[in-house]
Amino acid sequence: MPSPSELLADIRRVGRDRERGGYSRHVFEHCELELREWFVEQATRRGLEVLPDGNGNIWAWWPAPGDGAVATGSHLDSVPGGGEFDGPLGVVSALSAVDRLRAEGFRPRRPLALVVFAEEEGGRFGIPCLGSGLATGTVAPERALGLRDESGTSLAEAMRAAGVDPEHAGPDRTSLPRIARFVELHVEQGRGLVHRQRPLGVASSILAHGRWRFRFTGQGNHAGATPLDDRRDPMLPASLLVSEARRTAARYDDARATVGRIRPVPSGTNVIAASVDLWLDARAHSDADTRGMVEELRYRAEALAVEEGCEVLSSEESYSDTVSFDGPLRDELTGMLAAPELPTGAGHDAGVLAARIPTGMLFVRNPTGVSHAPEEYAEPADCDAGAEALATVLRRWSR
Amino acid sequence: MPSPSELLADIRRVGRDRERGGYSRHVFEHCELELREWFVEQATRRGLEVLPDGNGNIWAWWPAPGDGAVATGSHLDSVPGGGEFDGPLGVVSALSAVDRLRAEGFRPRRPLALVVFAEEEGGRFGIPCLGSGLATGTVAPERALGLRDESGTSLAEAMRAAGVDPEHAGPDRTSLPRIARFVELHVEQGRGLVHRQRPLGVASSILAHGRWRFRFTGQGNHAGATPLDDRRDPMLPASLLVSEARRTAARYDDARATVGRIRPVPSGTNVIAASVDLWLDARAHSDADTRGMVEELRYRAEALAVEEGCEVLSSEESYSDTVSFDGPLRDELTGMLAAPELPTGAGHDAGVLAARIPTGMLFVRNPTGVSHAPEEYAEPADCDAGAEALATVLRRWSR
Repeated sequence: MPSPSELLADIRRVGRDRERGGYSRHVFEHCELELREWFVEQATRRGLEVLPDGNGNIWAWWPAPGDGAVATGSHLDSVPGGGEFDGPLGVVSALSAVDRLRAEGFRPRRPLALVVFAEEEGGRFGIPCLGSGLATGTVAPERALGLRDESGTSLAEAMRAAGVDPEHAGPDRTSLPRIARFVELHVEQGRGLVHRQRPLGVASSILAHGRWRFRFTGQGNHAGATPLDDRRDPMLPASLLVSEARRTAARYDDARATVGRIRPVPSGTNVIAASVDLWLDARAHSDADTRGMVEELRYRAEALAVEEGCEVLSSEESYSDTVSFDGPLRDELTGMLAAPELPTGAGHDAGVLAARIPTGMLFVRNPTGVSHAPEEYAEPADCDAGAEALATVLRRWSR
Repeated sequence: MPSPSELLADIRRVGRDRERGGYSRHVFEHCELELREWFVEQATRRGLEVLPDGNGNIWAWWPAPGDGAVATGSHLDSVPGGGEFDGPLGVVSALSAVDRLRAEGFRPRRPLALVVFAEEEGGRFGIPCLGSGLATGTVAPERALGLRDESGTSLAEAMRAAGVDPEHAGPDRTSLPRIARFVELHVEQGRGLVHRQRPLGVASSILAHGRWRFRFTGQGNHAGATPLDDRRDPMLPASLLVSEARRTAARYDDARATVGRIRPVPSGTNVIAASVDLWLDARAHSDADTRGMVEELRYRAEALAVEEGCEVLSSEESYSDTVSFDGPLRDELTGMLAAPELPTGAGHDAGVLAARIPTGMLFVRNPTGVSHAPEEYAEPADCDAGAEALATVLRRWSR
């Protein structure tokens, strides 16, 4: 019976990013497809019935699909240059929990389902939790299928190339309606459990969060021949917005605003940019705070653009309101596992499902506290504790 | 006898950049090789003797290589998303000038040479005037051959793929030592001639200029789960340096500092960058001003990095001191063409050659004043006037 760490070692070679470090496993790209195949093989080996939905999500049922089911799972895609645990830890822990239950001869009275969600990170098509969003009906398929990656490939084209028929994208009417309870295990993306000296925690809430794109437009020109006074350089307002974002977020309680992606066009060393695209990731406790923060920044972006004779357009690429995980279920989890509660600023498929299905989340201690980067980590013993806890939850809920 | 505009129309379809607009014609890439072939064909058609050097530059001699020669030419490569005239106008005007001289039965007493220099923009390997720099010995071949483009291909590999043996890179001992005078015709990259209401001008000087790369390093992390106080986000100091560059340049007389290229790694919307590369293009009247400005910015970059708990390393990628074009030759050109003198902030192969050979430059009016962008333009009548002026210069100098 392989441990979660041993299962992770199985896929350690897949999708390494030699340039950025860590892993780049983007949905429906070669290496993510390899991980999907690996999951299907692992599920089949355990006697589970594999049932893909129309959105690129993969369900694996024990023993077979049925109503009132209990589900667990996570995702296999990563951010560019991400860590080894964000996503895969939840998937291998689900497999390991099944192993533990099978080893003790357990037979679920309620059906059990393992799930791998597609494009949780939005690393390829820009919208996070795309697979769970499509399945729950939060994201409209018309909008999603037209999304394009950096090379211009649409989601519809990428799905087709991966053997997923985009005609079937949209609300899941086969697996999801059968799920009565969902639990996702995830590596912690902070040091809350390190500070508490505990291997496991239970999620209390997720910050409201979203992504906004700002496009600043000016006049492309020669960097040497254009006097300063004659410039309309969109890099000026765009770059100033980065520190404005930090400053603005600091005025809200426990809020975050980040620019991790900025793209001047045409991007020549001796060329004043003609336009700059910049993505803002903003999060806060409430919808009002998040919206307020972004409105302030839109207003500032406008003023900064005007000052340089530039223009700016902004658009919302995704948004998720604050999630408070189901209260009774949280109490049950903290009691059952003697684990503390923790809030998180990170979005998860569990957050999307929480609006429809009683849902909980378990966190596994991350000694570095770092996530979305190669330093992300979880000790093998803590991963074992996580899988054991997940088995405990599934055993209790499905009997 | 095709006009310069007609010759430009010949190559108008080559290297269009559909994403950024304008042209992306990078040295030794498919479309730039197509332009080279076109030039060789045009030169051969005019009975010139084509003689490539070891650095990817192409010489075409009329009637044959010889000492005390007069040369003219420019380049065919572009910045990403550049204009149609920067470079090619000098090449087609040289061809057109030869047509004009041949049509009148002129036979040069001193040999005439047309030249196309490689990688003038530094758009692929980062160092501008690379071909002329290698030929004159200003750039060491050991350093140049190891330069890599964004996809990791080295100059040596790119040369080999283009049929240029990198073993022969370095100071040109065949064509360049034979050149007694050089003149380059170029589209103006500003509105000096528009203000003067004149179609043509003569270059007086080129600002000192160079390129510096700054690499800011912090801690990559999750954009949602990492509280503001726990961040070491290299986007903060990097983006602040953009406006510092503008502010610093404004304190120097007629100086310029530009950031047109910035690259966060890993570049995920929901990821705090682990590092950010940023390129500074800085120019001023004197070496002292340019160096002073860059030193100030290095100092500021360091302080900004420390404030965010980040680190910064900077390196000089290229540098050219102020060029004052040969005085007697300037007087001769302004007299011969009844054209005004103009300084420029843009670097040129003529600036590199000026350190070795009496060199002049002619500018053709650009109604938009824009360069390194699709809006770059020159009226056909002004292009004709340029080719006619170039013919006048070559006739005078080579008889």
